[in-house]
This record gives sequence, C-alpha cells and structure tokens, in this order.
Amino acid sequence: MSATKTRIAVLGASGYTGAELVRLLLRHPNAEIVALTADRKAGKTMASVYPQFFGVELPKLITIEELDPATVDLVFCALPHGTTQKVIKDLFEKAPKLKVIDLSADFRIRDPLAYEKWYGHAHQAVELQKEAVYGLVELYRDEIKGARLVANPGCYTSTSILAIVPLIEAGAIETDAIVIDSKSGMTGAGRAAKEEMLFSEVSEGMHAYGVGGHRHMAELDQEFSDAASRPVVPSFTAHLIPMNRGIYATHYVKMPGSTSAEQLHRILADFYSGQPFVRVLDFGMVPQSRHVRGSNMTFLGVVADRRPGTAIVISTLDNLVKGASGQAVQNMNVMLGLPETTGLDQVALFP
Amino acid sequence: MSATKTRIAVLGASGYTGAELVRLLLRHPNAEIVALTADRKAGKTMASVYPQFFGVELPKLITIEELDPATVDLVFCALPHGTTQKVIKDLFEKAPKLKVIDLSADFRIRDPLAYEKWYGHAHQAVELQKEAVYGLVELYRDEIKGARLVANPGCYTSTSILAIVPLIEAGAIETDAIVIDSKSGMTGAGRAAKEEMLFSEVSEGMHAYGVGGHRHMAELDQEFSDAASRPVVPSFTAHLIPMNRGIYATHYVKMPGSTSAEQLHRILADFYSGQPFVRVLDFGMVPQSRHVRGSNMTFLGVVADRRPGTAIVISTLDNLVKGASGQAVQNMNVMLGLPETTGLDQVALFP
Amino acid sequence: MSATKTRIAVLGASGYTGAELVRLLLRHPNAEIVALTADRKAGKTMASVYPQFFGVELPKLITIEELDPATVDLVFCALPHGTTQKVIKDLFEKAPKLKVIDLSADFRIRDPLAYEKWYGHAHQAVELQKEAVYGLVELYRDEIKGARLVANPGCYTSTSILAIVPLIEAGAIETDAIVIDSKSGMTGAGRAAKEEMLFSEVSEGMHAYGVGGHRHMAELDQEFSDAASRPVVPSFTAHLIPMNRGIYATHYVKMPGSTSAEQLHRILADFYSGQPFVRVLDFGMVPQSRHVRGSNMTFLGVVADRRPGTAIVISTLDNLVKGASGQAVQNMNVMLGLPETTGLDQVALFP
Amino acid sequence: MSATKTRIAVLGASGYTGAELVRLLLRHPNAEIVALTADRKAGKTMASVYPQFFGVELPKLITIEELDPATVDLVFCALPHGTTQKVIKDLFEKAPKLKVIDLSADFRIRDPLAYEKWYGHAHQAVELQKEAVYGLVELYRDEIKGARLVANPGCYTSTSILAIVPLIEAGAIETDAIVIDSKSGMTGAGRAAKEEMLFSEVSEGMHAYGVGGHRHMAELDQEFSDAASRPVVPSFTAHLIPMNRGIYATHYVKMPGSTSAEQLHRILADFYSGQPFVRVLDFGMVPQSRHVRGSNMTFLGVVADRRPGTAIVISTLDNLVKGASGQAVQNMNVMLGLPETTGLDQVALFP
Repeated sequence: MSATKTRIAVLGASGYTGAELVRLLLRHPNAEIVALTADRKAGKTMASVYPQFFGVELPKLITIEELDPATVDLVFCALPHGTTQKVIKDLFEKAPKLKVIDLSADFRIRDPLAYEKWYGHAHQAVELQKEAVYGLVELYRDEIKGARLVANPGCYTSTSILAIVPLIEAGAIETDAIVIDSKSGMTGAGRAAKEEMLFSEVSEGMHAYGVGGHRHMAELDQEFSDAASRPVVPSFTAHLIPMNRGIYATHYVKMPGSTSAEQLHRILADFYSGQPFVRVLDFGMVPQSRHVRGSNMTFLGVVADRRPGTAIVISTLDNLVKGASGQAVQNMNVMLGLPETTGLDQVALFP
Repeated sequence: MSATKTRIAVLGASGYTGAELVRLLLRHPNAEIVALTADRKAGKTMASVYPQFFGVELPKLITIEELDPATVDLVFCALPHGTTQKVIKDLFEKAPKLKVIDLSADFRIRDPLAYEKWYGHAHQAVELQKEAVYGLVELYRDEIKGARLVANPGCYTSTSILAIVPLIEAGAIETDAIVIDSKSGMTGAGRAAKEEMLFSEVSEGMHAYGVGGHRHMAELDQEFSDAASRPVVPSFTAHLIPMNRGIYATHYVKMPGSTSAEQLHRILADFYSGQPFVRVLDFGMVPQSRHVRGSNMTFLGVVADRRPGTAIVISTLDNLVKGASGQAVQNMNVMLGLPETTGLDQVALFP
Repeated sequence: MSATKTRIAVLGASGYTGAELVRLLLRHPNAEIVALTADRKAGKTMASVYPQFFGVELPKLITIEELDPATVDLVFCALPHGTTQKVIKDLFEKAPKLKVIDLSADFRIRDPLAYEKWYGHAHQAVELQKEAVYGLVELYRDEIKGARLVANPGCYTSTSILAIVPLIEAGAIETDAIVIDSKSGMTGAGRAAKEEMLFSEVSEGMHAYGVGGHRHMAELDQEFSDAASRPVVPSFTAHLIPMNRGIYATHYVKMPGSTSAEQLHRILADFYSGQPFVRVLDFGMVPQSRHVRGSNMTFLGVVADRRPGTAIVISTLDNLVKGASGQAVQNMNVMLGLPETTGLDQVALFP
Repeated sequence: MSATKTRIAVLGASGYTGAELVRLLLRHPNAEIVALTADRKAGKTMASVYPQFFGVELPKLITIEELDPATVDLVFCALPHGTTQKVIKDLFEKAPKLKVIDLSADFRIRDPLAYEKWYGHAHQAVELQKEAVYGLVELYRDEIKGARLVANPGCYTSTSILAIVPLIEAGAIETDAIVIDSKSGMTGAGRAAKEEMLFSEVSEGMHAYGVGGHRHMAELDQEFSDAASRPVVPSFTAHLIPMNRGIYATHYVKMPGSTSAEQLHRILADFYSGQPFVRVLDFGMVPQSRHVRGSNMTFLGVVADRRPGTAIVISTLDNLVKGASGQAVQNMNVMLGLPETTGLDQVALFP
C-alpha cells in the first residue's frame, strides 16, 4: 500500500547517521525512501558507499540541487553543522508544507546569541529557528506533534537531559553542583578521515577531549536552565572510548535537604512510566552501554553514593540510534501521528 | 491475533544463540514465545541473564523438566552438543507432532559412525537421526518443508557449504584441492567462562585453533562428499579474531581444464538468484564481515588468483544469525509455510 | 656478574602482575629470578602458562611450600588479597632479613579497623602491618629506603593519589568536593575465568561497577586524609573500558578563594620536577592512556573548567606497570639503593 | 661514552615505523639519535607528534634538506615507497661512507623489471640497487655484515619467508602448491588518514584486501624462487584484522613423497637453532600473535594436516618490530658488528 506511505528524503546519506536512517526506515512500514543525497558521492549507489545495502533497492545518491521537494513529504537532514540552515530555509521556500527533521546542531539553540557564541557565526535562519521544536520526544512530545521543523538533539545532550531534567524539574537536585563525566564510542566522530580517528590511534586506549568547552554544553545549559527556570551551568567532560556505539554518562549530583537517592530513582521511574524508549532500572542497578546497542532505548540507573546527600545517576544510549537517527524516526512517528514505536521496536544487538 | 501465532519454546535460552533467538522472535509477527528454559538459571528472569531484555515481557526461565510439550508447537533447542539427543527423543515421545529445530551438532551427521568418530560417543537417537533434515535452507528447502526435526548447521560449515557446494555440484572445482582458511569472532566460543576467552587474553591478537582436526570437518566432509558423490576431504583451519560476530572464510580452489574464475562467479550468482539471504557480490568484489553483522545475510565474493586455473572464493556471515539463530528462524519459516524472510528482514548493523 | 645480583622470587607468577614482573625483571641488570611460585600450576614451565616466555630461561613454577626463603634476597608477592598476610608472616619468621614487596591490598591500610571494614575480616598480621610502608615512591621515597616490607599501592589509587595528594597538601583544593571518575582496562580484573570478563561480554561497550562502594576507596581515604590532616571522603566511581591496559582518572576539583587552575598545574609541575616517572603535561594538555601503555610513566594534565573556581585534573598510567609491577620494581630499586629508573626506562608501546 | 656511539638519523620519523625506531633506539646502548626528519611536521617536536615521548630528550623534526649527512653515521630511511630511491642516491653522493637501512620497498626487488611491473614506474637508482642487500638477517647475515645499503624486508614477506624458505631449500615441500593466508593488524596500513582505516570502519569485523595481486608478492616470488632455483609463484591473500600489531600467516603446504610434517618441524628447528629472534615451537603447538607483540620475535609452529602429505606451517611476528623497525635495528647491529640482540632483548607485552 505504497499510496499511504510517507515519501522521505535523507539529505547527507553518506554519513553514519544517514546510513543509520536508511537502516531504520527500510523496516518502517509507513516510510518510503524516495531520495538520498550525498554531494560528493552523487551518482553512486548507496551500496557502493555502504556495502551492507548490496542488493537492497534504494534510490541513487544525488546532489541536494537535484532533489525536487515537491516529490517528498518529509526530509531528514543529516548534513554537517553550519551548512544546514541555508539548505532548510531553501527547502521551505520551495515547499512550505514539508516536514523537516534536522539532525545537525543548527536549530537546537533557541537563543541566537548563544548559538553565535558556541558556533562562531551568526545564525542564518533566525525566523525558522523560532518555530523549530527541540526534538526530544520524552520532553517535547506535544510541541513536536504539530511542528514543521524539529531539531533532533545531540547524542551527549540527549543522554544527560533524559537523566537530569526530570530531577531538576522536581527540585530534587542542587543545580549548581552537577558534574557530568560522559564517554562516547567512536562513531560519534563521524566518517571524516582524520588521523586521530584511525583504528591504530584510538584502539587500546582512551582520552578526554574538548575539556572545558565542548559545544554540546550549549544544549545542556539551555535545557537544564529551562527546567530550573534559572541559569544552570553543569560541568561536562567528554571522553572517547574504543567502541563503535554508545554514550555512557555518569552524573554526580547533590540532593537538597533530606532528599535520598531512592527518591531520585522514584522521580525518574514515575517520569518515564509508560514511555517506551526510556527504561529506569531497579534502584542500585548499573546500566551497560552494550545492552542498548543498535536499539532506540535509553537505560537509566540510580545509585546512592557513600557520601550522604549525593547520588550517581547513570544514563546510556546508542549515539546513532536514540542519540541521532532512531530519535529522528521517533520524532517522525510523533509528527505523523503514528504509534511512537513504529519501526523502532528492536531489542539491542548483544553480544 | 495471538490465536494464529505459533507457540514457541527456546531450550537453552541463557546461551548466546538462545538470546539471539529471543531477539529475533520478538520481532516475528507469527511467533509467540511461551517458554524459555535454562537449567542453571531456572527461576530467574531473562532480563537478569541478558539485561537488554529489561522491561520486555518474557516468560521466566524454567528447567526442561518443567516444560509441558503439550503447550508448545515448535521448539528451538539451543543446548550443548551431546545432551540434546536424549532431550529431543523425550520431547517427541511426549508430543510426536512437535516441530523441533536443533541448533546443536547432535543431528547434523547422517552417518552414525562418522558421528561417533568425531564426537567420541555412540549416537543415542539413531532412529530420529534418520528423519532429521540438514537445515541449510538454500540447499535443502524442499526436505525442510515437511520435516519434523531439522538439524541447524554449524556456523563454520554454513559459511563454507554455501560457497563451495554449488561449485562442486557444477563440477567447476577440483575436489581434492580445497583449502579453507576460516576466521571466527569470539561469540562462536559461547558464554562459558574460560580463561582463554577473557578479553585480556584474546583482544589485540589472533591465533589458529583446533588445527588439523576441528569437529566442523565432519559436516564439511558430509556435505562436500554428497555434492561430489564421492569422498571429499577439504583442508580446514579455524582462527579466532578479536571481534564479537562473524565468520570469514577464504577458500582456495583449483578449476579443472579451462574453467575460469568468472565462471565460478556465474555459477554462484545463478544458484543464489532469487534467494533472499545469499548475495553474490560483483565479480572481483571482496566481502567484509561487518557488512552482514546482525543480519541473516551471507555475502559471497569470487576473485581470480594470479596463478592461472585457481581462484579465491570468500564467504562471510554472522555466526549468531545466519550461522545459528537466524538460520533457525529461516528454517521455522519454511516449516510453517511462511515467507522465508518473515522476521529476518533487517540490514546489518554497521558501523 | 651474577654474584652482585639480587636473588628474586615472584610469588603468584601465573597472574598478570606476576607475568609483568617477570617481563620487567628479565631486563633488569641487577635482578636474578631464582624462584617462581604458582600453586595450581606448580610443576609447569612459565612458558606453558605465558607462551611469550617460550625459549626464555626461567625457573619452573613451584608451590610456595617448595620455596626456600634462604635462597632468596627479595620477594615480590603477587598473590590474591587476603591470603597474603599469612604467607608473608611465615616468610619473615623463616628469613627475617628478607625484603618483601607485596602487590596485594593486605598491607596497604594502616588502620586495622578500616581494613576490617572494607575487607570483611580481621587483619592476621597486625604487627607486620605496623612496619609496612606504603609503596608509592613519589610520596614515600625516604620511608621505602629502609623498609623491609613495602605495600605496593592499588592501580586506581596510585592514579588518583599522584594527581590529588600534592594539591591537598598545598591547600589548593577543597577537600569535601573531590569527584573521581575513573576508568580501567580489563587486565585490572585479573586472569580468573569469569563470565562477565569474556571478550564477547565486554568488548564494544562499557559500564560502571562497584558504584557507591569500591574497595579502593579505603586507600584513597587514607592517603587523602593523611595529606589533609583531617578526614577526606572523595566520591569515586570505577568503569570498565574495552582495552587491555590503562587507568584513566578524571578528577573534578574546586579551588578555595582565588586559586586558579594554572596554580594547580604549577603545584603539580613543581612537585614532580625531577621525578622520572610522573610527567606533568603543559597546562591545558589532555593525556591519553595509550601514551603510557607498557611504560612505568604517569601522565598528568590540568585544564580549567568553564565554571570559575573549578578545574579538571586528569591522570593516567598503565595498571600493570606503574599501577602494579613497574611500581614494584621501582620500590625494589629504592630499597636496594639502585638508580630509581633501573630496568624501567622504556617508552610506551604506541601504537 | 657518547664518543663510541653511532650517530643516527631517522628519516620519516612521523610514521609508525619511524616512531618505533625511536622507541627501540632510545634503549640501544650504542645508538645516539642525532636527527629526525618529517617533512610536513618539520619544526615540531617529536612529542607533539607522538606524545609518548613527552619529556624525552630528542632532536626537533627537520626536513630532509636540513639534514647534514656529514654529522651522521647511519640512516634509517622510513619514507614512503617510491620517494626513497632519489633520497638515498643523494645521501650517498654527499656521504659515500654512510650506512643506510631502508624500510621502504624501494631496494628490495633485485630485478628492475620485476620492480617496474609491481610498482608501476622504472627504478631510479639501478646502480645502487645492485649493491643493496636484502635485510632479513636470518637468511642474509653474511652479506649484511659488509653492506652499505640494506633493504629491510616487508612485514608480510618476512613472516612467510622465515617460515617457508628453509623448507624450500631443503626440498621438503612442493613449490607449486604453496597457499599463504596472511592476516595483519591495522598499523601495517600506516598513519595516513583514510576513511577505510577509521576505528568505526574496521573494528568489529574483518576482510581480505588486494586479493589476487598484492605488492608483497614481488618479494615472495623473488625469495622463494631464489631458494628453489626456479620460478615459484605462491598463492597469497592478505586480510585486515581489528588489532594494532601482528602479522599471522597460515601456510598450507604439500610434501613430496614420504616427507612428514614432523620432518618439516625438524628442518625449521635445526635452521633456527641458535638464532635469537626465531623460535620454533614444539611440534603441534600453534603460535598466537599476541605473544610476540612489541618484541622482535618470530614464533613458528608446524602442525600435521589430517590429509596425508600436507601440513600447516604458522608464523607470526609484530609487523612494527620484527616486520619493520626491530628488524632494522637487528640489521644495524649486524652492520656495526654488535651482538645481534643489542637493544632488542625485550619479551612481548602480553596481555
């Protein structure tokens, strides 16, 4: 029943998040991939860029210019940061009824000044920014339903926002003492050929990077501050781990007064009750990144620290799925009024 | 419509192939998991043994004795080699109409003497062995359709049989000069706690094992000899590679007379034309194990060697999927008259 | 000139730290390995347990009972925690002039009550404990010089003590707000065959463990409190990373008054000036665990956090070398009056 | 006693083999590193390119043009293939008494026509080629002693030549049926930033490459044919394995007449008796690549195949040490009349 399917274009299909979108959409009963763009690989088949698609019927890679927005209902935009603002502006000019889910950082920051500070240049589509909805379904489901432009959140930020925002909203943690030690698999760095991402450089070892000033902080500040209704500036440090997929964030929090770690657990369990893609483990259980690999799931764990009044909240998800392309499909489902789990109901690939 | 679903038991659900069966069956529209056994973990939840199932509704783990065969239509038996013969014999005595797919080696060897030679003890269900069908769908589809007992093939053997048997049948290679250099990921060794399988022992290095006499040879001999209608004894060497999933077999073959490598390629391409789970890459293309990871796919490649009259045939699959549990579900589909790809239509998880 | 060499026994040579001691001692010009014990492998050759020693002349493995202390000048004791107290007590009774370097936790905790609390049983050699010196050369060099019994520190604790104690001593950080997020390679778990340490279980993923109550905290509390002259209880969380070697600790600290991150850097740079095995990187540089792999080096980095008054101090070492066996050899050098770098002057194996 | 030290320049110090040379030479009692070149990184410190050298005294990186050959006794040339011929020609014109060990492929092929065929361009220093000695010490020790220019062999080829040439020379294997299935760690691909070498591309999977026509075949043909005194063309296939270091070659050989696998073992054991860097394991033992990691050792194993008259010979070494920089230092020792093991006497880093 192809007639009832949503016609989809993936812009930037040659990156990891693009390929992951294709993987997920191929199993989505309501999705029909009608266009794939990849500027430098235009003219090639998707299988020549990602051999796992050998033998799968897919449109050839084209340039963005070759895309006719009139033939498309919904666009996933998986282009690099900075280039996206203009592309999406142009798309909406040609096809104002299009639905767009942007996986870049370009429309995540509501305050244009904050955007400029962190990304080093003025925002080029400030009007569109105003209507963009931050696409973390668990927190913005209602806004996403009617949105035309959804800004898919970053992988580090999704991991920490899902763990911390409900606690801030409940007034259960002190907002000036949040320490986030986050660890990421290598696919988070994308497919660009860089010496420091070679297997021989990064296997069998680990390191922190961007220490003191990682761009993801802009999103964290925004969402944490919104939840607290006052400026919140967490400490955030990112590390690279020799694994392909997974963000693993360890959050060190302080509780005011007599709030206990068990109470933090209960707040999160209540908040995510009935939500299909966030699972709060039993109190004291520690999640592992491998148990969400390839799935759209987030696992949360809360443990009491031995120091009274403090707790450790751990959160993990697959950066390419719940941290990017799976989250984007979840957004699509909400925007289209489909059951939220459509096409996303797979358990992690472990081992 | 649960009424139309096949009621399924997985025996040995705590092993890797057991967990992989559960992963696949959860997305199978015609399957209902009604029982999971795991003798030493009986009484526990599946999520406590494999946390990726946290929050997923599944029956508790029970012992085999607790299983009532009358409540089940089809059994996947993922128990260790040797213990299975008696278990399946008992099952059929209680429920003769049951369908059984056995993932162990117990019913793969048609000749009881060959079984005894390789496995060191007499077969304990010789009568059942006679009706067992070798469960490699691409070669035995018709026999599997009506079978009550299907012996799911080994992972090393599936990889090489799919690459070589069509060539033997076509008389396109010399059967006394087949050299198989096969490489396996670590999940092939199972979940038993052994010093030599610790991360620190096997990461950052590789080695051959079982050199000169690996048990998988019994299956290879059987299927190759059947195809040739005379005894064929290939050279086979297995290696362990520091990766979780994947068998990668490099086959060195000689062609009689003027047969060319291109002809080998054409024979395989014709043989697997229309078969959903074997993809013959373009002539000269070399498959990579990562491009089938997590999928039920086999990728085959044929390359001419620089020495005239010889060729290299490469075959790769995911040992836990097409090499075990995915193959088993494919067998189930054939036995139940379902489309062969039901529940198995996922592309590899890469990267 | 074997006459001038120190005759050495390694107890527990079949563990990873035992094998690492043998690796290092083989290149030590003043060391002669005269005995290797390994109770369960007694009678075997070292090469049969660790094939990298194939062809290297080494004594056969014996039981501890078979060891004659009179034939030995110095003992490295690499036995499991708990069993060591009695073994060393017996050794000193037979040979009071022996020098002993113990790599277990048995003599690290000066307070018998703290030992009992963390290890669950009363200490069995309280008298010996009194003379044991904590074997972190950079902090206890003078005490180690004359010691008969040196307690080699733990790998997690060495990593954090080297980074934090000089800052506490200088009064440069607030002692009630130290957060330590530490990550370890898999060799830290030893060679015992455990399901959760299998390659398939731990590759391609990560997780925290022992959250809220890791035994290494006893050592941290002791050394931090000693440095502060009042009780200090840091927050400490350990994680397992899919790599063989390396501890990587990220320390989140607050500075009192107007102390800056640059000042922390200067304190550490001054403290370790002239010390061969601790390198303080330039201010703002972030160490990587791979750059100390296989060496006895510790790399320290200090970075300012974006939140005023806070800083991030990062420390990394190889858990089997500076975190265990290399540290032990360094202790030996100090005890014997040899240059501290003897036998330890190798640069990391990278890549 | 710096006066007695050999003054050494490493050309191409920013590549992996360059860094490995520096690592090894730093512990060599007779070597003094006086110059390091790296054209694109000239002006930088070695520590900025390889942080493991932070704090180690080393000359700054310079361009080749800045190198004064008069200040140097011996040059290690670790430049890319093709560029080296002219560089070395120029060096000898300025300093004819220089000793040069070339780690590229430029001087390995004695027949200029074979060179041209495999490398696609005419040799630019044919006269120098005539005096170049193939630098595999175990086979060419005497020629190396007096040589001015030594061509260090390739890593794949060293691995297979050490295993096979003694058997060819002894007439113990059939030379028209040699199949070599070789596997390499990722450092063999060097440090150039290529998409296909990214961690995310190559971890958790494996593949063959260059199938049918790998350049290393030129060296194998040359050395095998020389040993046989007639043209020998082995089958050779290379694979990439997700590990940093190690070549692991599985050789499938046929024996003439009644020659047994045990006899092959004895031939190798005799041939390498007394040779410090090749260890022939007991008959039937299978080597592992991890047991030579970081060392200059080659481990050889011989196993009988179940098919009469055939055997499996396995060989493994660390591609950066015995397969490149360690072999180069071994050549230097022979050229300088030093004990062959000087500076190379370290056991593998395992685990």
